[in-house]
Amino acid sequence: MNFLSQVEFEYPKAVSFASGRPSERFFRMHDWLGSIELFQQYDADRNGYDVSFSSRRLAQYGRTNGIIHELVARQLELDAHLHCDPENIVITNGCQEALSLCVQELCSPGDVVIARDPTYIGITGAALGAGADIVPLGETDLAVALRQTIACVRQDGKRPRLLYLIPEFDNPTSTVISVADRNAILAIADEERIIILEDGTYSMFRFEGSACPSLAKLDRTGSVIYLHTYSKLLCPSLRVGCAVVPKALFGSIDASRQLIASLSERKSYLSVNTSQINQAIVGGILLAEECSLERIALPARDFYRRNRDILMEELTKSVAAHCDARWNAPEGGFFLTLDLPFPLNGDDVQTCARDYGVIVMPMSFFSLRDRHYNCVRFAFSNLDPERVITGTRRFAHFVGDRKAAYRQ
Amino acid sequence: MNFLSQVEFEYPKAVSFASGRPSERFFRMHDWLGSIELFQQYDADRNGYDVSFSSRRLAQYGRTNGIIHELVARQLELDAHLHCDPENIVITNGCQEALSLCVQELCSPGDVVIARDPTYIGITGAALGAGADIVPLGETDLAVALRQTIACVRQDGKRPRLLYLIPEFDNPTSTVISVADRNAILAIADEERIIILEDGTYSMFRFEGSACPSLAKLDRTGSVIYLHTYSKLLCPSLRVGCAVVPKALFGSIDASRQLIASLSERKSYLSVNTSQINQAIVGGILLAEECSLERIALPARDFYRRNRDILMEELTKSVAAHCDARWNAPEGGFFLTLDLPFPLNGDDVQTCARDYGVIVMPMSFFSLRDRHYNCVRFAFSNLDPERVITGTRRFAHFVGDRKAAYRQ
Repeated sequence: MNFLSQVEFEYPKAVSFASGRPSERFFRMHDWLGSIELFQQYDADRNGYDVSFSSRRLAQYGRTNGIIHELVARQLELDAHLHCDPENIVITNGCQEALSLCVQELCSPGDVVIARDPTYIGITGAALGAGADIVPLGETDLAVALRQTIACVRQDGKRPRLLYLIPEFDNPTSTVISVADRNAILAIADEERIIILEDGTYSMFRFEGSACPSLAKLDRTGSVIYLHTYSKLLCPSLRVGCAVVPKALFGSIDASRQLIASLSERKSYLSVNTSQINQAIVGGILLAEECSLERIALPARDFYRRNRDILMEELTKSVAAHCDARWNAPEGGFFLTLDLPFPLNGDDVQTCARDYGVIVMPMSFFSLRDRHYNCVRFAFSNLDPERVITGTRRFAHFVGDRKAAYRQ
Repeated sequence: MNFLSQVEFEYPKAVSFASGRPSERFFRMHDWLGSIELFQQYDADRNGYDVSFSSRRLAQYGRTNGIIHELVARQLELDAHLHCDPENIVITNGCQEALSLCVQELCSPGDVVIARDPTYIGITGAALGAGADIVPLGETDLAVALRQTIACVRQDGKRPRLLYLIPEFDNPTSTVISVADRNAILAIADEERIIILEDGTYSMFRFEGSACPSLAKLDRTGSVIYLHTYSKLLCPSLRVGCAVVPKALFGSIDASRQLIASLSERKSYLSVNTSQINQAIVGGILLAEECSLERIALPARDFYRRNRDILMEELTKSVAAHCDARWNAPEGGFFLTLDLPFPLNGDDVQTCARDYGVIVMPMSFFSLRDRHYNCVRFAFSNLDPERVITGTRRFAHFVGDRKAAYRQ
């Protein structure tokens, strides 16, 4: 992603649809810092300390798996309808550390992580960083593709170990996996003893339609590790996320306990424990909100939905006027996928930024097998509505010129 | 370390010499949180933002290698007399993440990390977690031992890649490496193309004697990565540390740049970036202190020195009365090493905690080759002076009884 950061740095006035950051207008850092005191009081009350002892304790080293696991479990219960034992939660430095931790713990070098294509860059990096292979799912029906991919991996003499999925509002494609597909995937995971890493980052940002139960919620056999983060719901600089280990991994409570102990040990060697200051901020907010972040998510979700509507409207008005572009209508999340009748590469991104004042993300950057050249990811989460309009119009100009040039 | 945490949990009234935590009496979390505003103002001034923009920016994702690198470079210049380019600093989630990051980046599976024996458990975990081997240095003269160990490793067909050292007030032994040895080690590292990970965690806690220049300061050929942390100087829950890459790795500026880029990429997959809230706290404190932490370190150092004196005095009075125990006189740091005329194992630790109300750390827990059974690490950093006295006397009772039993 350094290339995109570089382009953004070089053209600061360009409208950037590149980065999937949450909108800053909902950050309440000043208030949130105040919520540390709430958590201190809670910590003191539960443990029979006085508040000043709790305050000093929070500044020390602490429990490797974190100190807000009970509040997080309650939030997952209320907001994701997920019942989990707080002891099965490992609090991490954001969802990314949870990803790396799970991949490093569960994969030996040469083991295979299966992911969709295109996929989130963070899993690709985590897999390769751990010496694991990452293998893309075919583009047919998900369950069929999964069976085929597993068979191919086994044929190559490798072990398919993990399946990474963002079932709700996938990054980068913004698609949602149907409940039927979720159940089919779970059956295969159980049968093939493959652990699913379910990334729930965007699940609280559904704009419309009915909520799907998460894989972890549907999971009957203990194959799903659920990954959660407060980066989009609150703010990224908290760097607080977690991994939730199933109660009985493939039916074994012992296997779950062993996995939690191994993750904990590995976490201690990766970063000792997640900052208790940051945990206290999240914990304090959860206490203030009675453990549901719905009230906080609501205005952000409305804002993102409105940006999506504006983007789709402008795409219809301006981009579609120039060419036979197509796009999806994301039911939630931060992204929209646009298909163009011509390919777009890194040079085009540069040209687009320099000459048209708009930055977009080629979907090929997320591809595991050098595909998706005609496709673009639009992140609409961190732009004011008028910038969405300006940016889309600028992109339409680029598309018009580019298409004309492409025809010649 | 879970065993020791468990013993501490089971016997909360026991005096614990087990954990090398900084004293909580010097934590000023409430004031420190206020220093975020100082950093926001600084950030706003330097970048031409207004403060509210800076505040929002700090709550977002940020530069992978961190945003306080210039202030940290200045602090290292003032407090460690180390000149480093801020661009060569990677800010991490404490020193432990810097360790893991460097080992994962620099070692392929089967590569060898060389460390002293006994050594800090964090390097053992980081090495094994990365699939590297960890090989102990022999106990002869350091330079001789290093040459021998390198030769043995090469003879086994393995690559000696890293050498981990805490030259000032080693954890667990509290020893200091002489300047002559430092220079000899640097010469070997250069000759053998081995990168030294120099852990400077305790270097600002010298009680007496003259300061030794760090390996990084003495390094002429670019073989030292310097690891630094604010966990002991400020407080552990900040989880802010860093790795400082040499200007020209074995003489090559390009190699250094490549290493920084690789560390940055890997850091982005481990944890995206270190929390900017925590960085802003450290940055704000550095601004308030004009980038030297000497004023903050001073009372803590005095306190630790006093605890060391009390511990040594009590050892003479009580433990030495019971047996031929010997101990070193640490010139700084958090630890003292005690040699006993009998071995001490995990069961003894339990007995000692349960029946005598004192918890100590067998040095064998830090050993890479199952040695040092007659040796104990005393951490004197996080106890009030009267607890040091009580704990030492309790340990003397244990020693008396244990020795009598051992004789029978």
